[in-house]
Amino acid sequence: MATDGEIAAFEVGIKLGALFHQFTGTPVSIKTKSSLEKAMGEAMKNQPYVIEAEVKIDEEMLRNSLKNPFGYVSLEGKMIYARVRIKFRNASFTGVLEYSPEIDYPEMKLVE
Amino acid sequence: MATDGEIAAFEVGIKLGALFHQFTGTPVSIKTKSSLEKAMGEAMKNQPYVIEAEVKIDEEMLRNSLKNPFGYVSLEGKMIYARVRIKFRNASFTGVLEYSPEIDYPEMKLVE
Amino acid sequence: MATDGEIAAFEVGIKLGALFHQFTGTPVSIKTKSSLEKAMGEAMKNQPYVIEAEVKIDEEMLRNSLKNPFGYVSLEGKMIYARVRIKFRNASFTGVLEYSPEIDYPEMKLVE
Amino acid sequence: MATDGEIAAFEVGIKLGALFHQFTGTPVSIKTKSSLEKAMGEAMKNQPYVIEAEVKIDEEMLRNSLKNPFGYVSLEGKMIYARVRIKFRNASFTGVLEYSPEIDYPEMKLVE
Repeated sequence: MATDGEIAAFEVGIKLGALFHQFTGTPVSIKTKSSLEKAMGEAMKNQPYVIEAEVKIDEEMLRNSLKNPFGYVSLEGKMIYARVRIKFRNASFTGVLEYSPEIDYPEMKLVE
Repeated sequence: MATDGEIAAFEVGIKLGALFHQFTGTPVSIKTKSSLEKAMGEAMKNQPYVIEAEVKIDEEMLRNSLKNPFGYVSLEGKMIYARVRIKFRNASFTGVLEYSPEIDYPEMKLVE
Repeated sequence: MATDGEIAAFEVGIKLGALFHQFTGTPVSIKTKSSLEKAMGEAMKNQPYVIEAEVKIDEEMLRNSLKNPFGYVSLEGKMIYARVRIKFRNASFTGVLEYSPEIDYPEMKLVE
Repeated sequence: MATDGEIAAFEVGIKLGALFHQFTGTPVSIKTKSSLEKAMGEAMKNQPYVIEAEVKIDEEMLRNSLKNPFGYVSLEGKMIYARVRIKFRNASFTGVLEYSPEIDYPEMKLVE
């Protein structure tokens, strides 16, 4: 049997995995960054046991990727910062998705 | 060699195919429908040659799908109405994604 | 600080959330069901800490959804059965994604 | 009214847009490259009017992206080469998705 803490941690994982794989590839520009962040955050808040959710797209990374002549790029996982808090019964956990330059990887972590 | 009209039609197809397959599966509820519609429309407007784009999620279909206890569903292609206008050189085309109940299929059509 | 069990549970959640939101919407038919199942399973096995992964698409549900004249449908979350086993240090967990007809919901659960 | 050639071109666009946005983000490694290519090609062949489809993931680009310690990456649009042939009534068109290093962009083109 899983503990409440394990179930809360499991639910955090679901949300971060979902967010990453749902939205990676979305056409995004400096101009549309905020509507996408809002939609991503609100999509997460729909899901079970979410009590807080926040999404930011890294503007500097976005600018640095804009080398094509069209003014937008496909959203990459490493551009996403997300923070989601889950409460399951008496347990709660916060998880973060954040790019780690050290390992060139969009890391997902349980932070508290 | 493709004509300008064929290229415009091709570009419309890209946008509708992209929209459908990018956003299908997104957690959506009555409450978050409008932020998702906005992000979907703005994502399309980023893409080359788009001069107009509009996205609506069918509220009635959304309500009818809400049979689970969590108050949201995964966005299905048939819930999406989208209209996008492309201009390529002297040619332009409008395409529509709209559910056809007759064939139970989210149809994509060139409309003008 | 999270325990090893909580981290293992978190990692299971990531994999199931990722799978669902990556592949929902994929054009699938009776004929291509097995290549999609294989690709989905192998994609999961790439991810950190996965020691076993299995994906099945429900053939009966697929057949029942095939009402359009084109012989394929967009993969829906409820058609997916997935089982993934994670080992993190001394802890391990298995998670399952499986449609629950009682609540009309593709449920994700920690099973052992 | 659209010509058969325009409709064929439109249908090519749908398939390439769909492919790109459905599969971008999928965990992929040298080992699982071929199962993913196969599933992507077969998914396209399900769609209306497709008479040929081929998908290749660029192995060199994949290797060059593998800088993290986990041995896989998220599939990026620029790693995909796809070719799809559509026949609509008497018209047919082939479209290609291929990365263009000159403009750092995954280009979609009507080729014949």
